[in-house]
Amino acid sequence: MNFETILGKVDFLEFLRGKKATFLLSASVTKTCEIPNISQAGIPGFLHLTPILDAEFLCTKQVRSMPQIAQTPKGVPTPALITRAVHELNAFSNIEILNLGLETLPQISHFKIHDFNMKPSGRIDDGARIQALEIFQKAIEFGQSYKTNDDYVILAESIPAGTTTANATALALGYECEGYFSSSYKNNPSDIKNETIVNALKRVESKNDLFEKLGFLSDNMIIFNAGFILGSRANNLKVILAGGTQMAAVLLVVNSILRSMDGQIDSSNLALCTTKWINKDENSNIKALLEQLDFPINAYASDFDFSESSHPALKLYDEGEAKEGVGCGGALCYGAINGLTKEQVTKKVESFLV
Amino acid sequence: MNFETILGKVDFLEFLRGKKATFLLSASVTKTCEIPNISQAGIPGFLHLTPILDAEFLCTKQVRSMPQIAQTPKGVPTPALITRAVHELNAFSNIEILNLGLETLPQISHFKIHDFNMKPSGRIDDGARIQALEIFQKAIEFGQSYKTNDDYVILAESIPAGTTTANATALALGYECEGYFSSSYKNNPSDIKNETIVNALKRVESKNDLFEKLGFLSDNMIIFNAGFILGSRANNLKVILAGGTQMAAVLLVVNSILRSMDGQIDSSNLALCTTKWINKDENSNIKALLEQLDFPINAYASDFDFSESSHPALKLYDEGEAKEGVGCGGALCYGAINGLTKEQVTKKVESFLV
Repeated sequence: MNFETILGKVDFLEFLRGKKATFLLSASVTKTCEIPNISQAGIPGFLHLTPILDAEFLCTKQVRSMPQIAQTPKGVPTPALITRAVHELNAFSNIEILNLGLETLPQISHFKIHDFNMKPSGRIDDGARIQALEIFQKAIEFGQSYKTNDDYVILAESIPAGTTTANATALALGYECEGYFSSSYKNNPSDIKNETIVNALKRVESKNDLFEKLGFLSDNMIIFNAGFILGSRANNLKVILAGGTQMAAVLLVVNSILRSMDGQIDSSNLALCTTKWINKDENSNIKALLEQLDFPINAYASDFDFSESSHPALKLYDEGEAKEGVGCGGALCYGAINGLTKEQVTKKVESFLV
Repeated sequence: MNFETILGKVDFLEFLRGKKATFLLSASVTKTCEIPNISQAGIPGFLHLTPILDAEFLCTKQVRSMPQIAQTPKGVPTPALITRAVHELNAFSNIEILNLGLETLPQISHFKIHDFNMKPSGRIDDGARIQALEIFQKAIEFGQSYKTNDDYVILAESIPAGTTTANATALALGYECEGYFSSSYKNNPSDIKNETIVNALKRVESKNDLFEKLGFLSDNMIIFNAGFILGSRANNLKVILAGGTQMAAVLLVVNSILRSMDGQIDSSNLALCTTKWINKDENSNIKALLEQLDFPINAYASDFDFSESSHPALKLYDEGEAKEGVGCGGALCYGAINGLTKEQVTKKVESFLV
């Protein structure tokens, strides 16, 4: 396996080769996922469980809060399988869960679950009513005080309907987004998503400040992770944002916050790592999103795909039915800089589906 | 490779995935091994050397205190080969030896050998005359003050005839044992072992307190490790007891000590890890031993066997001639959570026998 450089230079990721990583999973819910057909990241009617099941599977290889693993309606298994496969082949030194508004806790012991006393964020077509500034401040504090024994942190997410809120967020902040945002669907359900985004944007007025806007149409994950990145600059923590266009939206929020306060950021210890499926996606453009940042950013994509598999459920990834999530792009890049092969990862993922 | 859960949940071992381990080898001698044909863990007439040779081989891949590696009369090589194979493939961060009554020291430098000024424990058919309370107190102190830079400790043992003393110990403490204790023999030499145990139990009177009983018919390893476990709860050290029914006996002693003082233990950071050969052994029942504990315990077994080998000496393991020792079950579980494959371990062990 290898990785491709989307933006920046190879040096940051090369420097992390062989080093130890803590994996942080931002597990969150936006009630936007309750809009019918808006997301296929999970079991219809139970999408709010997806981040909980992902956390359980990643940590224990067991799904405890529901009798079956999260699958999309077409039967695409959660990308948590890929992240777990990498973890089994070359373990992260540590996994911790960030509870960014789950309805119930993952049923796992020993693993640290950070609690921030948050509720699921609301539907953005109904005014999400997120206490954006409060969440941001909690995240700044957490980022400033966060300590790890490892060399770097891989920050991932699991939040169904997250690409819709990410797209709305970037639009509200004035970024060019047309055709740039990804979806967990191959045939992007643009009507439902666009309708939702349009309805959400209607609530935003020009007099609203940045955090008011975020409160209307963003989600806990985006706001929190933007704060975490800014806070963790105090320690110059090395952070890989493991995700696709949603993590790009996190960086756009960071950018807007810096603009609003005339601030600057040393982004040399930050990178975004995603999948080949995002990098080569014809229906989105992560590079175009990242190029709108005022600061330089390293961005990489794994070259992993399921071309060595003949499993029909996994081939759907190569056909564009699922592209990112649960940090699988970051996990694959981590696998690449730790010597894993495509064959090893393919076989391990397949072993979960038998 | 993978592991199976005998008791408890996967979470504790999953949490240790990718984390760093110190391997502690309790090297000890009970003169019970001098009873002819009671153990095949070593070279007849030189069984007292077995723990010394095991320590040397584990640390250096060389046998220094005897010109050949410890083998059973039928030619089953010591399980130290398995532990060493795992160490070569994915090294423990640190190995330390606990000298629990060796007649001579292992000839190794740099590796820490903890000395506790103990003599080999006596033959239990002759009244072992162990200063049980003194050893227990030393162990409590050692456990309380023991520090490691690693995330957890794998505590293993090498003590020939140890299953006999373990069985006698559990019986004297009133536990149900019929058919539950393992042996290094396939055709368990029950007559000699049972005769020895019966003779040992004759010395125990109901007026004897717990430590008097242990002094008659236990061994240094069991008493010390029980104290180590209790002492190390002060720091909540994460400990894997790497062994089979002997380590179960250690836990039964912990249990009896707690009962005698109306004490309690937080066992959430403890687990027992053993081999498939013990887990599937028809002549013993480790689960039944562990189920007699008053506290919950996590117990796991490796799924490793020598089915991928054609080496006749190794096939004897699969035939039940050797089952545990030198922490090989714990080492294999450690290998499993660090991504080693059965093929890798098999080939490495075979390379030692050429």
